[in-house]
Amino acid sequence: MECQLQKNWYRACMTTSLPTATRRRARGELTRKGEQTRLRIVRAAAELVLEQGVAGTTLDEVRAVAGVSSSQIYHYFADKQALIRAVIELQADTIMGTQEPALAAVDGLAGLRSWRDSIVQYQREADCRGGCPLGSLGSELADNYDDARRDVAAGFGRWEKVICSALRRMQARGELAADANPDDLATATLAALQGGLLLTQIEKSTRPLETALDTMISLIASRLTSTG
Amino acid sequence: MECQLQKNWYRACMTTSLPTATRRRARGELTRKGEQTRLRIVRAAAELVLEQGVAGTTLDEVRAVAGVSSSQIYHYFADKQALIRAVIELQADTIMGTQEPALAAVDGLAGLRSWRDSIVQYQREADCRGGCPLGSLGSELADNYDDARRDVAAGFGRWEKVICSALRRMQARGELAADANPDDLATATLAALQGGLLLTQIEKSTRPLETALDTMISLIASRLTSTG
Repeated sequence: MECQLQKNWYRACMTTSLPTATRRRARGELTRKGEQTRLRIVRAAAELVLEQGVAGTTLDEVRAVAGVSSSQIYHYFADKQALIRAVIELQADTIMGTQEPALAAVDGLAGLRSWRDSIVQYQREADCRGGCPLGSLGSELADNYDDARRDVAAGFGRWEKVICSALRRMQARGELAADANPDDLATATLAALQGGLLLTQIEKSTRPLETALDTMISLIASRLTSTG
Repeated sequence: MECQLQKNWYRACMTTSLPTATRRRARGELTRKGEQTRLRIVRAAAELVLEQGVAGTTLDEVRAVAGVSSSQIYHYFADKQALIRAVIELQADTIMGTQEPALAAVDGLAGLRSWRDSIVQYQREADCRGGCPLGSLGSELADNYDDARRDVAAGFGRWEKVICSALRRMQARGELAADANPDDLATATLAALQGGLLLTQIEKSTRPLETALDTMISLIASRLTSTG
């Protein structure tokens, strides 16, 4: 099936680099060619996991899609779990590659609404497929792989922090009421986003995502000062 | 690993019957013994899927846990997909078995807060494991199995409807403002709950769930009339 999200998402993954690999190359532990091979393996695994989940993806399939040998995979990754941790890193970095600049540009309620619109638009173009790649990994791995769970939690922590920073800037400018709590509002906004993405993926309609985000934004709007 | 949620959840699953099986028995398509065998297979599959996901669960494992033969499984289920649809039905009915009475008892803001407390308490006793069994199935299946996706969507539809009914009763009594929209508030509450459960499962802390639900309840509180 032709799927715009997956195409768009793969394209985004293809231009995301892996900080751990870059650091390892800086320390001389990986050659440039080694870094590229490692990245090719992780991107192939990310593509398969997005379609089939972690449990549904075998290292043999990763090998075939990446066009590498088994021994090359084991040269870079001790086991499937190590490879999956690199997939989580790639997905978190791909998400933050768009979310960090989008949320850094939020300068008030209109900016929050633009951020909301861009997320809804993305899901609409994707025919509501894909949900949140990081949320799906978390749902599958959280109870069984504690290292992977922590990696996903760290990714969500980065996301929550940039939402919180946008709200703090609104508060510093006197737009958001001084007694509003940007930490709690950021947590609730991320939860609304994740729940909205999940319900949108399940209902194949952007309505739940739109409603969840609009409701959070209306709550934030109700906490604006008269100058906000 | 000793896990209270999974123990509690299995116990709840063990006392949930399957409406489709009951209907089939009423139509003479299943004997009582047949209904019980079918239910044992579905409960075994539900337990395995909760721990390992759909892709990580084989029919051989289901057969071993249920203590039945392969031919018995194929007597009741054409294929794995048919069995998974019965698992979705069991999980939706188990959830609604507690959520329908809990939300029917909500008679105002204090009732909503009690509902919130019971969900948070459940997750705390479960060491934040398990997330939402229906949400996890939806996340794994929504893009690849359209029949299963519709079943999960129907389960969420029932959940959203009982949240909405609680809000409509508050509105009919004049507590909730006449221009508040119970449909949208119910959708946003379900999204907050699902996102909160996911973040709580990933962070292994009830804080995101508490914050997401408290934020929604504070929004509903802000829409109460002076008599509310």
